[in-house]
Amino acid sequence: MPHFLSVRDVPDLPQFLAEARAVKQTPFAWSHLGRHKTLGLIFMNPSLRTRLSTQRAAQNLGLNCMVLNTDKDSWKMATGEGVVMNGDAAEHIKDAVAVMGQYCEILGVRSFPMLVNREEDYAENTLHDFVRYAGVPIVSLESATRHPLQSAADLITIEQYKTKPRPKVVLTWAPHPRALPQAVPNSFAEWMLAAGLDLTIAHPEGYELDTQFTAGATLTHDQDAAFRGADFIYAKNWSSYHDEYGHILSRDKNWMITPAKMQLTNNAKFMHCLPVRRNVVVADAVLDGPNSIIIPQAANRVVAAQVVLKRLLEQI
Amino acid sequence: MPHFLSVRDVPDLPQFLAEARAVKQTPFAWSHLGRHKTLGLIFMNPSLRTRLSTQRAAQNLGLNCMVLNTDKDSWKMATGEGVVMNGDAAEHIKDAVAVMGQYCEILGVRSFPMLVNREEDYAENTLHDFVRYAGVPIVSLESATRHPLQSAADLITIEQYKTKPRPKVVLTWAPHPRALPQAVPNSFAEWMLAAGLDLTIAHPEGYELDTQFTAGATLTHDQDAAFRGADFIYAKNWSSYHDEYGHILSRDKNWMITPAKMQLTNNAKFMHCLPVRRNVVVADAVLDGPNSIIIPQAANRVVAAQVVLKRLLEQI
Amino acid sequence: MPHFLSVRDVPDLPQFLAEARAVKQTPFAWSHLGRHKTLGLIFMNPSLRTRLSTQRAAQNLGLNCMVLNTDKDSWKMATGEGVVMNGDAAEHIKDAVAVMGQYCEILGVRSFPMLVNREEDYAENTLHDFVRYAGVPIVSLESATRHPLQSAADLITIEQYKTKPRPKVVLTWAPHPRALPQAVPNSFAEWMLAAGLDLTIAHPEGYELDTQFTAGATLTHDQDAAFRGADFIYAKNWSSYHDEYGHILSRDKNWMITPAKMQLTNNAKFMHCLPVRRNVVVADAVLDGPNSIIIPQAANRVVAAQVVLKRLLEQI
Repeated sequence: MPHFLSVRDVPDLPQFLAEARAVKQTPFAWSHLGRHKTLGLIFMNPSLRTRLSTQRAAQNLGLNCMVLNTDKDSWKMATGEGVVMNGDAAEHIKDAVAVMGQYCEILGVRSFPMLVNREEDYAENTLHDFVRYAGVPIVSLESATRHPLQSAADLITIEQYKTKPRPKVVLTWAPHPRALPQAVPNSFAEWMLAAGLDLTIAHPEGYELDTQFTAGATLTHDQDAAFRGADFIYAKNWSSYHDEYGHILSRDKNWMITPAKMQLTNNAKFMHCLPVRRNVVVADAVLDGPNSIIIPQAANRVVAAQVVLKRLLEQI
Repeated sequence: MPHFLSVRDVPDLPQFLAEARAVKQTPFAWSHLGRHKTLGLIFMNPSLRTRLSTQRAAQNLGLNCMVLNTDKDSWKMATGEGVVMNGDAAEHIKDAVAVMGQYCEILGVRSFPMLVNREEDYAENTLHDFVRYAGVPIVSLESATRHPLQSAADLITIEQYKTKPRPKVVLTWAPHPRALPQAVPNSFAEWMLAAGLDLTIAHPEGYELDTQFTAGATLTHDQDAAFRGADFIYAKNWSSYHDEYGHILSRDKNWMITPAKMQLTNNAKFMHCLPVRRNVVVADAVLDGPNSIIIPQAANRVVAAQVVLKRLLEQI
Repeated sequence: MPHFLSVRDVPDLPQFLAEARAVKQTPFAWSHLGRHKTLGLIFMNPSLRTRLSTQRAAQNLGLNCMVLNTDKDSWKMATGEGVVMNGDAAEHIKDAVAVMGQYCEILGVRSFPMLVNREEDYAENTLHDFVRYAGVPIVSLESATRHPLQSAADLITIEQYKTKPRPKVVLTWAPHPRALPQAVPNSFAEWMLAAGLDLTIAHPEGYELDTQFTAGATLTHDQDAAFRGADFIYAKNWSSYHDEYGHILSRDKNWMITPAKMQLTNNAKFMHCLPVRRNVVVADAVLDGPNSIIIPQAANRVVAAQVVLKRLLEQI
């Protein structure tokens, strides 16, 4: 059964990017594919871009869409084997997922890490329960450790704006008042590297990501050095992966992206997955400046979701 | 005006079941029926299966669908005649329902009992207010005392799996940590009996249901005796109807459905409306065993809803 | 770029009303207009009529619809220039709106006043941020100071029920337990006056509205005098605009609309935008009497929204 959980589900990235260009040019050319089919979107956490862009992608494909917010529309779910359900949870996820798989041809699910126990988060139990029990293709709408629809849109955006075959792409940590998941940087790194781009990751000491995602990238604690010669700056906060998992190790304001820092680059385009904390992660002048491509990047979320859904529809 | 509130709205059960078979074989054969029409689904309580299966049934019929969660999307409603609305409620249900009837060709509504005052719950005031004020056909998505879409799916499932003309069907009470409505067992009993099946109801002393639903069934307090020779075991918890209305009278773990109990039966299929508390109501080994038909039963919720909506669309 | 924010966006009211009659007669005659297009509806506050009637209008036009409840489905938004976002707000409205404009051909937004600072409320910052940042046509689904889709439906209703070319229309304040916005009366006044109707506004002393909306109307503190000879009575509570902005200045029950008061009129039709507090704002006997047109008035919300969306679709 085909799924879309990580870049490993796209072994043919050049073909994927070619399809993205085609979808962008003629978004309604595949509107017959979704006929009489339904996509179920399960949100265990709030969502704006993913929620709306995936619905729009489905509409472009003629695919019906149903949205379920499990924290509000239904009830708490139990997980794990053999549990005696005499507590809060009214339903086991294995039953709920199996049922939803009966009502939909494709399911999308968003779940988040708790940022308390690294092994639990990185086991991706919720996502894997969907894969195990649904009986239909699963699309990750962001999971505990990856956000592949975001990364696909990021790659499509870089392909659209790059002016050389192998641009220098810099993923830089930036400060944030809350402890955030590593899903976006993990996923961004593995997509950039799978696409063969020149990736540098800059972050303060202690913020090293899991090497399963970053092997092949240049790692540095010197943000300025990283920015020199960069063609794309991708800013994102994340919390600690190795020591004190899920904690904030630094609030260093010197890591905020400013016009002065962007001056160090090769006239780099600025990217962020959004939502972004203005003047904390990045200065207004960068976000609103001529090199900011955050809005076309967000627009490409529809393109990415549409290529993914189109491919799954073509296989079922 | 046609409605779907109970088995009394289906005087032709054999024809209903024939239509269910047809809908199952060619789900999109009536996709013209819903053209230019809209179904409004009003949820006063959480819902997963009913919410998604009814939307899917509507989509199969080409029927537009709008969902309103009255506890979150709108506001508290007043009920009853002559009330001076100077409290919390911003709108009277008679006005809200009359307006929704202007926007939709069919309305579905889910309401629950309070389990405090039996007469109030069994008066079904909310459901009847929808019937009285909407001016369009009403579909019960579960009300205080009945869950007819569930029961219709249950009957369709039994017809699908039965191996003799008149199987022995056992509805058995099972323990649960919360006080639950009688809607599912009430409704199940009246549908089984209307279909002429051999129904036995087993429960601890004090859990007798209203005889308006159960007249014609064999009643027993001996679960083991009930299970002997059974072709279908349907497990469900409910709270007390007669004395101490809405209360839990027993938490007896001996009533949990186990493989040993299923051994007493005639190789019976196991059914539950879901959500189910695993290892409280029924053991994992039964739910996940080869005789469990809970997932096809849940899948038949789409079929039941589609036949109901199809019939209403054919009459309006 | 065309928008629908106030009556100023409808310079051709007679033509608008002609289109409303056409939409009412053949609601599906423009169902090709919305093909391959999506309307995004953003609710920052609860809504029943606006939510459902706008969705239905979109469906009649073949227009896809996505609903986002920003208070539940996404997160708190920052506003204003130069803000350092180290507090609760996870995203700036300028970014969220720009992104939503990438996913939808038209956006509708509902926002409410805080009723604390008049200048802030009347600056309509949220609505204007949508206009400024979306890059697509904006439809007001009620803003801090106006409710133009309601007023459009009100005008359509008066045109439908009037028996003389220039009826006497009375907007009367009525008591209410909560402090309410001035949006509905402001908007009603400017639409009635723009349409050239004979408008009288009756309210207790101190409840004067902003004259930008009411210039041209007859103002009085004598409700009985206002009612004499009236062809339409439009009841609505609002809070103080001038002194003690946003406060309740009167709870005088003598301003409740009763059958005796309706006797003073020229057999006037009774109107209210709903939701209405029964027996506080208006007596049951008026709401449920033969001259009440509150339900056809609510039904015309679909017609008004459909004309507005149809016009925007014809221009994009």
